[in-house]
Amino acid sequence: LEARDADALSEVAEKLHPADIALLYEDLNEEEREFLSSSLGTKTFSDVIPELPDTLIEETLERFTTAEQSDILDRTSDDDRADMLQDVSDEARQRYLSLLEPDDEEVTRSLMRYGEETAGGRMTTQIGRVHIDMNVKQAIEELRSIQEDTKTLSRIFVVNDQGTLMGKVRLRDLAFNKWDTMITDIMEEEAHTVLATADQEEASQMMSKYDMLLLPVVNEQNHLLGVITFDDAMEILEEESTEDIEKMSGISGEQSEESYLNTATMLQFKRRSPWLISLAMLALVSGYVLTNFEALLQALPILFLFQPMVVAAGGNTGGQAATMVVRAISLGEIGKNSKRAVLAKETMLGLLLGLALGLTMYAFCIIILPMLPMFGPSEFNGIGYHELGFAVAIAIIVQLTTATTAGALLPIAARAIKLDPAIVASPCIAALVDISGMLIYFSTAKALLGL
Amino acid sequence: LEARDADALSEVAEKLHPADIALLYEDLNEEEREFLSSSLGTKTFSDVIPELPDTLIEETLERFTTAEQSDILDRTSDDDRADMLQDVSDEARQRYLSLLEPDDEEVTRSLMRYGEETAGGRMTTQIGRVHIDMNVKQAIEELRSIQEDTKTLSRIFVVNDQGTLMGKVRLRDLAFNKWDTMITDIMEEEAHTVLATADQEEASQMMSKYDMLLLPVVNEQNHLLGVITFDDAMEILEEESTEDIEKMSGISGEQSEESYLNTATMLQFKRRSPWLISLAMLALVSGYVLTNFEALLQALPILFLFQPMVVAAGGNTGGQAATMVVRAISLGEIGKNSKRAVLAKETMLGLLLGLALGLTMYAFCIIILPMLPMFGPSEFNGIGYHELGFAVAIAIIVQLTTATTAGALLPIAARAIKLDPAIVASPCIAALVDISGMLIYFSTAKALLGL
Repeated sequence: LEARDADALSEVAEKLHPADIALLYEDLNEEEREFLSSSLGTKTFSDVIPELPDTLIEETLERFTTAEQSDILDRTSDDDRADMLQDVSDEARQRYLSLLEPDDEEVTRSLMRYGEETAGGRMTTQIGRVHIDMNVKQAIEELRSIQEDTKTLSRIFVVNDQGTLMGKVRLRDLAFNKWDTMITDIMEEEAHTVLATADQEEASQMMSKYDMLLLPVVNEQNHLLGVITFDDAMEILEEESTEDIEKMSGISGEQSEESYLNTATMLQFKRRSPWLISLAMLALVSGYVLTNFEALLQALPILFLFQPMVVAAGGNTGGQAATMVVRAISLGEIGKNSKRAVLAKETMLGLLLGLALGLTMYAFCIIILPMLPMFGPSEFNGIGYHELGFAVAIAIIVQLTTATTAGALLPIAARAIKLDPAIVASPCIAALVDISGMLIYFSTAKALLGL
Repeated sequence: LEARDADALSEVAEKLHPADIALLYEDLNEEEREFLSSSLGTKTFSDVIPELPDTLIEETLERFTTAEQSDILDRTSDDDRADMLQDVSDEARQRYLSLLEPDDEEVTRSLMRYGEETAGGRMTTQIGRVHIDMNVKQAIEELRSIQEDTKTLSRIFVVNDQGTLMGKVRLRDLAFNKWDTMITDIMEEEAHTVLATADQEEASQMMSKYDMLLLPVVNEQNHLLGVITFDDAMEILEEESTEDIEKMSGISGEQSEESYLNTATMLQFKRRSPWLISLAMLALVSGYVLTNFEALLQALPILFLFQPMVVAAGGNTGGQAATMVVRAISLGEIGKNSKRAVLAKETMLGLLLGLALGLTMYAFCIIILPMLPMFGPSEFNGIGYHELGFAVAIAIIVQLTTATTAGALLPIAARAIKLDPAIVASPCIAALVDISGMLIYFSTAKALLGL
């Protein structure tokens, strides 16, 4: 590439997977991109463009002449083409659509009607499809004529006159059976289908659970519209996991399709700042609680020592509970009827964790604290190690039990009001239990130590 | 099931996917499990057992007689069988191995030699394999004889006399070509393979990136040992995402294969308590820092108001940075040479976020704070709103810049010393920046306000 040797480059590119060329292209500068696109040509780029992040699609297509654009769009599979056209400007979309052959244009327009994150928006319509009245010979001839346009023939779907999905056969059943065998004799029922309007996550979970290579997408009349392929399912699983992880860290907005280092710093700033600033406002409430216990802290300065710990432990255990519950919801493990069981389980866990940490801190107060020279009698104001330890332990038990319960409750409540459970996880819960932690800690100390 | 009607049950079960039966079985009590296993028989259970969580495998197999166990093990695919036998007690493993036919036993033993989380441990050896000297007719006959034992024939691998992987053909290439076509004429090169000893995550990332249905697993001499199938890749992707998410919330240890509600509370306790208690110890250091600034707080009590906010904002932004970096590492986006670029990017982001939050808080100090009646002159000790706002803003900028940089640095450093980057994410970083936050906040206030 450095040497601008187009022939050598084409030779290397032929051995590379389009996904690798796309990654390389993303990292190049303007002039290098121009050179790469002109030397590799439309055949290679028709495979590369669908692998590019959505922000680069239009600028890359625009490097080619109209005739070349038409060639690239023609070579692309229908689902990739619909995805690409959803990511370009309105003006460019109309222009590209007009370059397509009439039937391709119709298919593309119909695919674009489904949202990008629905099963319909992800499906491909280029599938192996045979009629229920055919025999094996007829089916093989039917498939032979369409084979080069078809993404996968591992499962071939059987439809009737109305296009209703009747069943499926495997390619091996065709290859290994006599030519006069009827399709109806070797066809199997298709137990799982998904509606075109369903969320893509539902489709990918079904495919993962049932180990499906292809999931047929149907409309409400059970007419076969297309299929979701295993490679789309893998992509959806990765996208949804990334989305959950990001939301759980208070990162909002759409995830970028660009790799981390290629994503603009300002875009990252826009995704991270809203939660950061909102949670900071909430943290001022914690500060206000703290100012209210100023007198208590002056009377018994040793209370400072445990305050960050009680608060942080609540945030950590609440965050752990939220993580477990959010992930269980994502994997479809928590039904509508098991909310009580989840809450009971987490409350019990919070109590156990509180007992464990409370006992640890009680031991710290009576064994370690007396040995530390930096805390003199002025910090204790006449309170004994046992009394202090007891007060700290009780505060920890109350804080961890409530924080853990809250950590489980919030995602479930978010789901009930149709919010994404991941959004209320870790940072949000930490901010809330910061406030409750301060109140619990100082009130307990005040009551138990008689201050 | 309630009615103990075995016939009706078998009929229903035939329509259910084994994964659904496994979920049902997991939720049953002892007596119901006994009834289900005896009425559905070995044929159904040979599909159900591989879908069960590993803790239930031995107890379920033990419900059957020795002859039945032998039948179940015989019906199971080789990779599932090896996985199952890795999850039972040593005594049971020897007993089950002795029930296998000699060649099955050999295959199973060789698969068990690879770690459960390696490519070799995940692969199946039941693949379509033809010799490079064959023609299409010979290949079809070869495959016909093994077809019922083979998980997938969508890709058929071509080997030479030594078993070296030479290429692949698609089943459709066999079905749609003349019988006297030589395999060498229609075979394609296989560009991607994985070593049997490689981590399963490497295999699944490769399959997802290159949209592969099957990934050939080879040894160092490039001999074909088996393949990883797309359904295993989906399972690995889900497992690895769950593992990352859990580690990032300070949950340690192996994830349970059981669903959330079926996992024992004590097991959850064991996974959550170690980090909770370690981080609580670290939080005591924060408390110690706080006790050192006792005099400052007494002189200027309004500083209490902002302390939790400065600390929490550092934790949140550090956590966000760590999340982005850990996820980018997981998806293979950060190479060994881009560490500097990552750090530069996050430092810049920390500075921007610090400026945004710092300005917000400065505005709060000069506009909102004077309007709040609960903070009287006694809290301010002669310090003006502008001076206070300036000190708070500077502390925020310093804290957010260092916290964000630390959030990016820690996962990268962890990887460099072969630790899992996810393990040092959110809670760990929050605990560290709690300490730095206290120091930064109080030192800045002390210096700028001249106290």
